[in-house]
Amino acid sequence: MPAGRPRQFDPSAALTQAMELFWARGYEATSLQELLGATGLSRSSLYQTFGGKHDLFERCLERYREMVVDSMWQRLEQAPSGRAFIEDSLRRTLAEQRVPGGPRGCLVLNTANEFGHRDPPITERVRAGVDSFRDVFTEAVRRGQADGSIRSRGDPHRLAAYIVAGMGGLRTLVKADEGQDHVRDALDMLLLALDHD
Amino acid sequence: MPAGRPRQFDPSAALTQAMELFWARGYEATSLQELLGATGLSRSSLYQTFGGKHDLFERCLERYREMVVDSMWQRLEQAPSGRAFIEDSLRRTLAEQRVPGGPRGCLVLNTANEFGHRDPPITERVRAGVDSFRDVFTEAVRRGQADGSIRSRGDPHRLAAYIVAGMGGLRTLVKADEGQDHVRDALDMLLLALDHD
Repeated sequence: MPAGRPRQFDPSAALTQAMELFWARGYEATSLQELLGATGLSRSSLYQTFGGKHDLFERCLERYREMVVDSMWQRLEQAPSGRAFIEDSLRRTLAEQRVPGGPRGCLVLNTANEFGHRDPPITERVRAGVDSFRDVFTEAVRRGQADGSIRSRGDPHRLAAYIVAGMGGLRTLVKADEGQDHVRDALDMLLLALDHD
Repeated sequence: MPAGRPRQFDPSAALTQAMELFWARGYEATSLQELLGATGLSRSSLYQTFGGKHDLFERCLERYREMVVDSMWQRLEQAPSGRAFIEDSLRRTLAEQRVPGGPRGCLVLNTANEFGHRDPPITERVRAGVDSFRDVFTEAVRRGQADGSIRSRGDPHRLAAYIVAGMGGLRTLVKADEGQDHVRDALDMLLLALDHD
């Protein structure tokens, strides 16, 4: 590349590469050097384009949320029933147990656990992510109650909050490398609530 | 202090101080400098006594597990019923939402989320911690079924796996700063399983 000519790069692709890295390793464990390696950016391009590691991470959280929430709505539209969508969503967390390199979990829930409340702009994005997940599950419960796949007549908002908590708990057990039988026990019991009043 | 005389310190107290720091901030976010500040150790004392940050963290995880599991067994012994112990354990996670400085969560579950499977000695200790929590809840379910406070006749091991997952999920919601009403909804629904067959 001729000296003096700015390197061309695709900010959207760089964002995706950075997101993958943060997702796999977490914020603190990801070094600037690794981010530069993964994105192919120079240090100055990264700062000029994204404003530094922290701002880049906020953008990655937002990108992740859009990607996951879009995919959830799509899967809900294609699911044979409201219940099938919920079961599928929870079972996916278990499949991660056998992924090479270990389970990454969910970037939003990982970040909740890593940061807690110590960085308000990050916490704000995490809460927005969890709220979006809850919205999808609320609609899934409504549909399941309407299509007869969910027998519980419980408030969809309450059931959705419970499902998001269950999802977070299953992900934690998988990351703790708990025995598959224990994780499956927890999953089976979580689903029972869909059948109770 | 006279030069040449080795500084006296209490390794057990230093371990507790390091544990508190890792608990509040996580492994990666805790710098060696902060560990030296919190423990009052010199760099060479820390390395001589604990073998470095990673080994110190393993010791802290072990100390945390002993401390928490001892306290859980004590609370179970003193609880008016098996169910009261389980309810109290889950409700404690909610109380953390209003703690100044934000919720620390549980060091074992935080570490599961931070590390996943990428550091086998750490994952081993995390799994041992989760197993210990499950053991206490298994016994609590047995007692609750015997004392009549838990109507479910479900397998205590399965209910205990579910309760640990629920605990992990509630802690994640609290760290995500989810609205108290949502966290309480999830808690109330989690407890319903104790009443169902």
